[in-house]
Amino acid sequence: MTEKKFSVCFEPGHRVINGQKGDSLLDLAIIAGTGLCASCGGEGVCGRCRIKLIEGELECEDHLQISAEEFAQGIRLACQSRLVSNVTVEILAESRFDTAISGDAISCTLQSRPESVKNKPVLPLRKVFLKLVPPSGADNSSDLGRLKRFLKPFCPTEPDIDYHLLSSLSETLREKNWKITVSLLETPNGVKIINIQPGDQTLTTYAFAFDIGTTGVRGQLLEVTKSQVLAQATEYNGQIPFGEDVISRINYAAREGGLNQLQQAVVNTLNNLGQAMLSECGLEASDIAFATIAANTTITQLLYGLDPKHLRLAPYVPLASELPLIPARHINLSICPQAYIYTLPCVASYVGGDIVAGVISTNIPHREGLVLYIDIGTNGEIVVGNKDFMLTASCSAGPAFEGGGIKNGMLAKPGAIEDIELEPQSFEPKLSVMGSGNPKGICGAGLINTVSALLNCGLLGQNGKYNTHIKTGRLRKGADGYEYVLAFGREFGQGQDITLSEVDIDNLIRAKAAMYAGYQTLLENAEANFKNLEKVIIAGTFGAKLNIKKAINIGLLPELPEEHFIFVGNGSLAGARLCAFDKNAQTEASAAAKMMTNVELSESVSFMDNYMAAMFLPHTKSTDFPEVYAALGKFNGGRI
Amino acid sequence: MTEKKFSVCFEPGHRVINGQKGDSLLDLAIIAGTGLCASCGGEGVCGRCRIKLIEGELECEDHLQISAEEFAQGIRLACQSRLVSNVTVEILAESRFDTAISGDAISCTLQSRPESVKNKPVLPLRKVFLKLVPPSGADNSSDLGRLKRFLKPFCPTEPDIDYHLLSSLSETLREKNWKITVSLLETPNGVKIINIQPGDQTLTTYAFAFDIGTTGVRGQLLEVTKSQVLAQATEYNGQIPFGEDVISRINYAAREGGLNQLQQAVVNTLNNLGQAMLSECGLEASDIAFATIAANTTITQLLYGLDPKHLRLAPYVPLASELPLIPARHINLSICPQAYIYTLPCVASYVGGDIVAGVISTNIPHREGLVLYIDIGTNGEIVVGNKDFMLTASCSAGPAFEGGGIKNGMLAKPGAIEDIELEPQSFEPKLSVMGSGNPKGICGAGLINTVSALLNCGLLGQNGKYNTHIKTGRLRKGADGYEYVLAFGREFGQGQDITLSEVDIDNLIRAKAAMYAGYQTLLENAEANFKNLEKVIIAGTFGAKLNIKKAINIGLLPELPEEHFIFVGNGSLAGARLCAFDKNAQTEASAAAKMMTNVELSESVSFMDNYMAAMFLPHTKSTDFPEVYAALGKFNGGRI
Repeated sequence: MTEKKFSVCFEPGHRVINGQKGDSLLDLAIIAGTGLCASCGGEGVCGRCRIKLIEGELECEDHLQISAEEFAQGIRLACQSRLVSNVTVEILAESRFDTAISGDAISCTLQSRPESVKNKPVLPLRKVFLKLVPPSGADNSSDLGRLKRFLKPFCPTEPDIDYHLLSSLSETLREKNWKITVSLLETPNGVKIINIQPGDQTLTTYAFAFDIGTTGVRGQLLEVTKSQVLAQATEYNGQIPFGEDVISRINYAAREGGLNQLQQAVVNTLNNLGQAMLSECGLEASDIAFATIAANTTITQLLYGLDPKHLRLAPYVPLASELPLIPARHINLSICPQAYIYTLPCVASYVGGDIVAGVISTNIPHREGLVLYIDIGTNGEIVVGNKDFMLTASCSAGPAFEGGGIKNGMLAKPGAIEDIELEPQSFEPKLSVMGSGNPKGICGAGLINTVSALLNCGLLGQNGKYNTHIKTGRLRKGADGYEYVLAFGREFGQGQDITLSEVDIDNLIRAKAAMYAGYQTLLENAEANFKNLEKVIIAGTFGAKLNIKKAINIGLLPELPEEHFIFVGNGSLAGARLCAFDKNAQTEASAAAKMMTNVELSESVSFMDNYMAAMFLPHTKSTDFPEVYAALGKFNGGRI
Repeated sequence: MTEKKFSVCFEPGHRVINGQKGDSLLDLAIIAGTGLCASCGGEGVCGRCRIKLIEGELECEDHLQISAEEFAQGIRLACQSRLVSNVTVEILAESRFDTAISGDAISCTLQSRPESVKNKPVLPLRKVFLKLVPPSGADNSSDLGRLKRFLKPFCPTEPDIDYHLLSSLSETLREKNWKITVSLLETPNGVKIINIQPGDQTLTTYAFAFDIGTTGVRGQLLEVTKSQVLAQATEYNGQIPFGEDVISRINYAAREGGLNQLQQAVVNTLNNLGQAMLSECGLEASDIAFATIAANTTITQLLYGLDPKHLRLAPYVPLASELPLIPARHINLSICPQAYIYTLPCVASYVGGDIVAGVISTNIPHREGLVLYIDIGTNGEIVVGNKDFMLTASCSAGPAFEGGGIKNGMLAKPGAIEDIELEPQSFEPKLSVMGSGNPKGICGAGLINTVSALLNCGLLGQNGKYNTHIKTGRLRKGADGYEYVLAFGREFGQGQDITLSEVDIDNLIRAKAAMYAGYQTLLENAEANFKNLEKVIIAGTFGAKLNIKKAINIGLLPELPEEHFIFVGNGSLAGARLCAFDKNAQTEASAAAKMMTNVELSESVSFMDNYMAAMFLPHTKSTDFPEVYAALGKFNGGRI
């Protein structure tokens, strides 16, 4: 039986394509070559792939980025719309790419922006294709003079040139008979020529966006003229052997040669991720024209070899909240040697570019309603605010959400157990594993979901200790006390069992307690509470799909109706990607960082109280989690 | 007997100092700390040290830079004025330094300029002394943010920062308790922070100026806030082993690794010269805040590792007429690693920054009367023009004027024979040697003067061959044919005799013929002749004092009244120095380079004819040298 086929007509341009029931309108639009843009790669976060339904029907849920009035007018996000009938849709003007401002000389992309952002979008790197008239006896001006002369119509102010380009300039100009592509970087101090390539290279511009976490590092390979994500990759931060958290790495950096080792380690991680993505797409390192990076303040300073000592000495001063553009060659990042790296600005010593990236990727500086933004990771970062103010704080949750400090923990990659169902009588598990292979470990989401399931079936007490009265072959005493066996090695033809011990659970409880106390305290500082929130936006890299109910069940998230939550995945990486697609996003990041006020949780008495109260499953205050308490009472007979 | 003492009173400021008869007013003004400026280091070239005689008398010659009217008003150049009585002089406003535009925060120097130059002078590197408020709990903004905040009053536009400074920024700020000196470079694209030093470093700014010739390289160590020359040094260009002229070096650069060898060689030469000057002044390489360089186009490209191949392939295209500022570290020049190098712009493949430097140092673009500017060197460079036009050409004279291709030739350094007198009967020489030691060789001036003397006494024929009928112990047959012995080794306790062979003389004749034919041809192109010239300006490094009469005698210079000639010494180095003292000079250099029109002598039939006619002493056309011919007739009885 074949799936039913439907036709889609994209206007303007009247491009018609056939698809199957359930196909994403974004995918179809890309295949049809309509030039529809989706900066977030189809994750429903950026709100840029706006279409209008003209004829037919689409399966489409209500979405934060579309107002009720717009929805009634037929406005939809293409990435959130699925094919269920023959349709005609219009790609809205602000969501279309336009090419060629002036002939084919400039490849310029107009991207859509949320309505609240009024600036016209600008690619961070502008490419201009030029056909120079070759020199002759009558006109033997210098190579550089000739280049600047022909560049003048596209660059009215005299551009600076990176002196590294001079040594290959003469050969590059002559390689394709004086046809060249010039890459222009707009800097605060004018335009700079950062690359010159033979022939016409304006059709594609590749970039890397990286989110460098303390524990995990994620990268994406982007094609920025069409706002596409071509590949992505995840790996542990190579700095982990030098210390699990930022404080221990700052200490390590103080050793002889330590700073250099830490820098090398994280650059190696980036280069490994980069190589994997390049291989996947059949590209070379020299094809990557620039990179954007979001990371916390310590990791950012370590990446650039900048001593982080003062980050942990009062009064806790970062080296720079906004770093200048750094040439890739300066840190041996394996991309085009002429390329520059843009770094998301930071707010304070412990509130970095990663959280600023999250803030702009979820558009908090333009929201009316109060939102709580939570980035769950080794450093939990929290923002409370809207267009009027933003308070921010960070709390050291530890690496549990990224699989760190957990015996069988791992990053959210193929092989990670991300969900579990427990048979209530036998306590036998049914595992959901990322990818198609055997389970190799537990990722952050798997950890949350497993603890929730163990708690619900009564095998685990609210204090995080196993109920050893219950007899099952899955519960046993191991080296770290009692442990539950999620997978026996023999079941999957591998040596090691995958287990979850009380020590592992204790690490998770500390982590979730720090997060919960963090946002509780920050809300107190904003003189607000959970009930004032329009939305709770959850970012993190702990697994593809966070199960909100189960996260509430263990007390990681507050007990609010499920529709209050939005899970956006990796908000930091989304912000870095946005800054690669649009220079205006860089300006927004700069403005957002200046608008954010840091609250030092470590100096708050209230935080410590909130933390101690949260060291329980879900929480010691049953009135804050009435439904969880009610449900637990049903399963474990009220034993606490 | 002691020299008579006189008092000098400098106004305004009424600084009184005593001096001896014959003392230079410039030297006295410097000792008195009056802030009088002399950009050219007292060589009488720049015309900046203008004073007015109020009372008393000065010994002072008429000078090109002072009009007759001004002279009558008492205006003088301090460097050209000598003490002969008690005097009161006023330092003219345009010749005074003013300090501190705003308190002691900015050390700013106002320099004098020729009247024709209207722009206000600007130091190429601006230093600002700042006292930052240290960070506190209440103000823990980033180090870079703090720096930029305190810099704002002195730099209204947001400055860029060299990313190399970031790694030491935190320590530098704290080293002298948040007191720092910031060095700001004005670039075409705005202001750039290129150095940050602890404490107040505004009182002095040291720079190097280099003239890199094909054969000889000259450097000066400058203190730019007071326009002082502190030291100078000369050395052969380390590229000579790879080829004596630019064509052979261009060929060598095409070999595997050849370009790199040539670059290393000239950078080593610069570093050796720099080290010698630094040692002399007790300074460190890191004290040198910037450098300026004047060189021909080939040498410039080799210095920066830029393949010179296209310079010798039609249509003869240089890589760049104006190079961007190049960081010193890029070529391993041993100065402050943050420092930048300014390169004088070039006109064409064979008309380089050295000639542009000479043009601005002698103020040709502001002159009314027609002048001929001649830079005598391995590449002879020639300019004919004034404020309305400038024609320029270069001719390959060969290295004879710098002692190259001459068996006992040497650069104009201590030990060089620079002049000679011959006893008419015995033909015994009386030598003038640079410095106080024994003669080691013959410099360019010595060569010209020796050939002139040998010609005048009849020992040498006008065809450049020795008159072997004359019997003297000084004339003998050597390996290269007949040779005259200037100094027997035994006379000075050294092994080698210093001789001048017919082969040496032939090299000199070729060199002077190329020069003479060059300016003859260029004048023809300008539809002018020697009689139309207001002045002939001679630049070169072949010896401290060129004897004009003797240079005319051998036909290097045209037969004109002696007052038509000005010898300015190293015009290229003077231009490089000027560009170190005043950024406006850089702008002038850029404008001059654009105004200059290159004439390709190698494509001129007339040049070849002129060259053949000049292969004689002084010249085959006796009507052009009537006085020389008349005088020679007296000595050698008309034998030609």
